Amino acid sequence: MAEEKKQPNPKGNNKNDIIMTIASKRGFFYPSAEIYGAKAGFWTYGHLGTRLKHGWENLWRNFFLGLSKSYFEIDDCNIMPKKVFEGSGHLKHFNDPLTECSKCHFRFRADQLIEDAMHTNVGGLDENALTKLIDDNKLLCPRCGSNLMHVRWFNMMFEMKVGATGEDIMYLRPESAQSPYLAFKREFEALRKKIPFGLAVIGKAFRNEISPRQGFFRLREFTQAELQIFFDPDKINEAENWDFVKNYKLRLCLAKDLKEEKITEITCEEANKELKIPKFYAYNMAKVQQFYLEILGMPAEKFRLRELDEKERAFYNKLHFDIELNMDTLGGFKEVAGVHYRTNHDLGGHQECSGENLEVVIGDKRFIPHVLELSFGVDRNVWALMDLFYKEETERTLFTFPASVAPIEVAVYPLVNKDNIPEYSNEVYERLGKEFKVFMDDSGSIGRRYRRQDEIGTPFGVTIDYDSLNDNTATLRDRDSMKQVRVNVNDLIPKLKKIIAKELEFEKAGTLVVKAAKEE
Amino acid sequence: MAEEKKQPNPKGNNKNDIIMTIASKRGFFYPSAEIYGAKAGFWTYGHLGTRLKHGWENLWRNFFLGLSKSYFEIDDCNIMPKKVFEGSGHLKHFNDPLTECSKCHFRFRADQLIEDAMHTNVGGLDENALTKLIDDNKLLCPRCGSNLMHVRWFNMMFEMKVGATGEDIMYLRPESAQSPYLAFKREFEALRKKIPFGLAVIGKAFRNEISPRQGFFRLREFTQAELQIFFDPDKINEAENWDFVKNYKLRLCLAKDLKEEKITEITCEEANKELKIPKFYAYNMAKVQQFYLEILGMPAEKFRLRELDEKERAFYNKLHFDIELNMDTLGGFKEVAGVHYRTNHDLGGHQECSGENLEVVIGDKRFIPHVLELSFGVDRNVWALMDLFYKEETERTLFTFPASVAPIEVAVYPLVNKDNIPEYSNEVYERLGKEFKVFMDDSGSIGRRYRRQDEIGTPFGVTIDYDSLNDNTATLRDRDSMKQVRVNVNDLIPKLKKIIAKELEFEKAGTLVVKAAKEE
Repeated sequence: MAEEKKQPNPKGNNKNDIIMTIASKRGFFYPSAEIYGAKAGFWTYGHLGTRLKHGWENLWRNFFLGLSKSYFEIDDCNIMPKKVFEGSGHLKHFNDPLTECSKCHFRFRADQLIEDAMHTNVGGLDENALTKLIDDNKLLCPRCGSNLMHVRWFNMMFEMKVGATGEDIMYLRPESAQSPYLAFKREFEALRKKIPFGLAVIGKAFRNEISPRQGFFRLREFTQAELQIFFDPDKINEAENWDFVKNYKLRLCLAKDLKEEKITEITCEEANKELKIPKFYAYNMAKVQQFYLEILGMPAEKFRLRELDEKERAFYNKLHFDIELNMDTLGGFKEVAGVHYRTNHDLGGHQECSGENLEVVIGDKRFIPHVLELSFGVDRNVWALMDLFYKEETERTLFTFPASVAPIEVAVYPLVNKDNIPEYSNEVYERLGKEFKVFMDDSGSIGRRYRRQDEIGTPFGVTIDYDSLNDNTATLRDRDSMKQVRVNVNDLIPKLKKIIAKELEFEKAGTLVVKAAKEE
Repeated sequence: MAEEKKQPNPKGNNKNDIIMTIASKRGFFYPSAEIYGAKAGFWTYGHLGTRLKHGWENLWRNFFLGLSKSYFEIDDCNIMPKKVFEGSGHLKHFNDPLTECSKCHFRFRADQLIEDAMHTNVGGLDENALTKLIDDNKLLCPRCGSNLMHVRWFNMMFEMKVGATGEDIMYLRPESAQSPYLAFKREFEALRKKIPFGLAVIGKAFRNEISPRQGFFRLREFTQAELQIFFDPDKINEAENWDFVKNYKLRLCLAKDLKEEKITEITCEEANKELKIPKFYAYNMAKVQQFYLEILGMPAEKFRLRELDEKERAFYNKLHFDIELNMDTLGGFKEVAGVHYRTNHDLGGHQECSGENLEVVIGDKRFIPHVLELSFGVDRNVWALMDLFYKEETERTLFTFPASVAPIEVAVYPLVNKDNIPEYSNEVYERLGKEFKVFMDDSGSIGRRYRRQDEIGTPFGVTIDYDSLNDNTATLRDRDSMKQVRVNVNDLIPKLKKIIAKELEFEKAGTLVVKAAKEE
């Protein structure tokens, strides 16, 4: 069946295939339940991928929860009562357009079918407009060539029956965001009724996509990292740490400039004054951009904040910029995150539907807080790490991951497997293991082992040889420059810590390895 | 409806109620989607509970994955194809006995209904035996007093339809263990075909319990932390680090001694020789016990490894000890984890059902690896932390959590909110925040703030007062002893690190705070 194609990417370019091969062979990720013939849209993270994902999640957690003393994480269920999605609007609005072949009865996502056939963007059109496009352009079933039926809406939530009587309908949450809204009242009170405050979730979400196609970019089960910030709408033009960002330049792609892919580089101050982007919103745009460029070290030219116009964004979003990264494997800029001003849509909806008063009283003002949402697709971001840090050189391929996300930070290589070298290597492994993610790589020629670790993005290697036994030194190798320096084993931990700390300040590790060695 | 009772614990004792009140008021946990009237068996972790849970998970991860260079974590989907559960046997065997009222048609778990009425254990009985017990003892519907119908089996997996055509049936995994079995082949190859090797998952599992009753102990959505160790069955009486555990005393409750609740204290060596417990199994029992007693610091008398006899354990488990903790809130010893020798049941079943060869070749031997499973219910363990570390004193209640799991490690208290004290406190908060989980507690009297942090188990407090501004010192307060010492602010981080490191060696922090101060 068309929708069950195993192929991760319809464009199927070379870089994509290479990364997919490395990913499945080395243990980054592969299709879930593969031995039974995997279903599209479900993936397993292997032992390296899990660390890459956790590495990204931990950076995200530290960075975004570190923005305020009042930002905290919560952890909620995936299965939620039907009523929740009446309140959130998902039962009514969370639909994809579906068309069915009149003969083979295969079903297709109507918008994708039209976009593929006509190379045009049909986002935001209703079912009649889509049907008219199919009819006017005589589009037929891609499988059997018969006529397609009238487009209708298909709800994308997974439904299930709960309890022995089976009469209770519940759903898997289609976005993690609902959890903070449901927990809002409890947490507002537990956190002593201060505002703004923020609730984050790093967790699963589930969508019954009609045809999941783009590898990691349209999954049926996926992980989100989202921060919902509850704030007073009257104060949207205030930001506590404004001075730190006001001269910081945002890389914007405004809605009007999308066709030309024009980037507007503009300070937060200018964005506020000239584009009327409120300070609280601009501040968070800056922080998201810093996360990508400074924490993850991605090249600025691969990053943009893309504005969605009224037609494209959800009706409840008053302001909506997607974070897009330019990825070869996906043929251009693709969404990996978003900054959404959701107004009081969510809390308001839940208040109305649940009958629970979700207003707050601050001073002498009573109101439903507004929400600014920072929303990240974790799997998409993991894929972006694979795409943007992949590098080919004549003799090797490598991932130039920053150490903070690399699945393995330090590989330990015993030069030979005899003469006490394994025992000494074990000692070094144990000591380094207390501070870093380590791996003992002890089989094959040393050159082959270096390549093997380069291929999975291990930034540092420590080789133990005969000299090590005499003078307590080892060779420290840098992945990117392939430079090697001789280092005293007792200095390894402080030296590596220094290099990794510096890495976040954007210097190249290769130079630093040498510099750190010379400083002795 | 009976099954939807909000009451967390049918025994409803006082300690349970107190902990539940603190938990929901302070942000540890509360029923999920509460504003819509929560469904039984679904809970949300609030901002403190999420940290407590993550703290436990991180300790588990570091400890158990640290046992071998070949143990790694993977991360998989919750939704899995139907075929998986044909291979695993869950479609056929994962059932609870159900009886229905002939009049009101309410459904009950037959075994629980009988056990409640007759105060006897009916585990392992089949549907006919259960029906006979109901009939012989004239048990009636607890709701309306009518006759109960014949007992039948009810499959506990959540089923859902996937894809636009809806013809694909998939299930939420009822145990995280299936993921390592499905990924076994990929990871065995990626990890260079070494055995034993282990795959861990910390993730969700889902069971459609007919009547979830005991608070955190029978959830419909819950988190498991499981390590599946694949090994050569011919080497089950070998353990690499046997010398480290052979004289370590296990606390066993053997099947024959269950009624008397007798504990057998016996070394691993004796368990191996006298009880014929294989070394590989005994080694892992010792490690699990060490995790509870030494890493989590739980009192030995609250811990036992309980043997399940042939009738109680799953048919595929050749050896099965539950880890049980004695909890006041649950009226005795309750299961929080298990050590299961699952043989080749799982890989064998999947090989047969998928047609994929899951044998390995080691040397000149070809075989399906056997599995030793270390399985932990994370939510149960979180509850155990709340139960075992809860303490009442005349003037306060507190949780004596070890710092490693405490939601907040250090609270910072500015004595007053003026005269530069908030600014200085902020500086201290920022510095400590780089190393510890910190919280700024700046409202209410200082005594009230201490109580508030004691109540949620914050082990350390740092009070900033007028003297701090002059001589750069602060008051460091220990939760358990309530002792206070004056410390130079520059020494806070190394001092706290030292105390926390020592804590793992079983000295009381209170003494250490004083000792650390005197050492200067």
